[in-house]
Amino acid sequence: MLQKAAEINQLENIKYQQNALEDVEFATETFDVIISSLTFHYVQEYDVLIRNVYNWLKPNGRFVFSVEHPIFTAEGSQDWVYDEDGNKLYWSVDHYFLEAQRNTSFLGEHVVKYHRTISTYLNELIKQGFKIIEVNEPMPSEEMLKSIPEMTDELRRPMMLLISVEK
Amino acid sequence: MLQKAAEINQLENIKYQQNALEDVEFATETFDVIISSLTFHYVQEYDVLIRNVYNWLKPNGRFVFSVEHPIFTAEGSQDWVYDEDGNKLYWSVDHYFLEAQRNTSFLGEHVVKYHRTISTYLNELIKQGFKIIEVNEPMPSEEMLKSIPEMTDELRRPMMLLISVEK
Repeated sequence: MLQKAAEINQLENIKYQQNALEDVEFATETFDVIISSLTFHYVQEYDVLIRNVYNWLKPNGRFVFSVEHPIFTAEGSQDWVYDEDGNKLYWSVDHYFLEAQRNTSFLGEHVVKYHRTISTYLNELIKQGFKIIEVNEPMPSEEMLKSIPEMTDELRRPMMLLISVEK
Repeated sequence: MLQKAAEINQLENIKYQQNALEDVEFATETFDVIISSLTFHYVQEYDVLIRNVYNWLKPNGRFVFSVEHPIFTAEGSQDWVYDEDGNKLYWSVDHYFLEAQRNTSFLGEHVVKYHRTISTYLNELIKQGFKIIEVNEPMPSEEMLKSIPEMTDELRRPMMLLISVEK
């Protein structure tokens, strides 16, 4: 019962904040863990954000985040190249080293993203003082490949990049 | 004079060995630095090689190597996609998660290479105990871009991946 009460108390300590990531402020060494899901490719100043995350973490704190994969964001159209019958021929890569804005469409809306290279994603973390723990390019599970056949296309190019680091 | 003599002596200590990388043997903790240039994409068992390199290095030893970039090796043809006038349209990526043999052509010869993902290149190093120091996707210099205009194509997709790690 005591443990249950402690858990509820912890849950009640969750605070929600709706803000641009660039404007968020926390005291240094506030968090044990920082997690971000598919957000940083919308942020222009990755280096500033990484510096902030580093400061907000306690010593040995962990930071795990996912972004759209640079192979996915480089060319800009975010779609396959098709043949005249509508078959997916391959994924196209272009402008890889042009780390800049990409104008894309998501669920019918115009969305601005920022492409950067794999080395930029990793080296900014290292420069800031983080230790790389794991780099993951997720694939569909065997189960998912069986139940949703079109998921096999996800084996043809990486869509996401997950990085886990330690302060 | 003494220093010069010492230098010559050091140079005379260089030993050349011609062997398949899989068959090379050295005592554990033999080297301060191990460097490999554009070789590991010809080797099938990357994990075994990384384990060996780790063992051959002294504590805090450095290992720096380059490979053909996974974006470059994934699809297999190792060439651009062209339009009907011979213009380079983009680079194609396919079979990214198929870590296996690629049959390519180099200087007119048939060459077997092994494609693996970026995460495999990095995580095998981390699993073995290496610390990632830097990941580099080299670009042509501004000077090179000025003197050899077709070098601008090298900004469209990465061709090489350089990784620097510490034991």
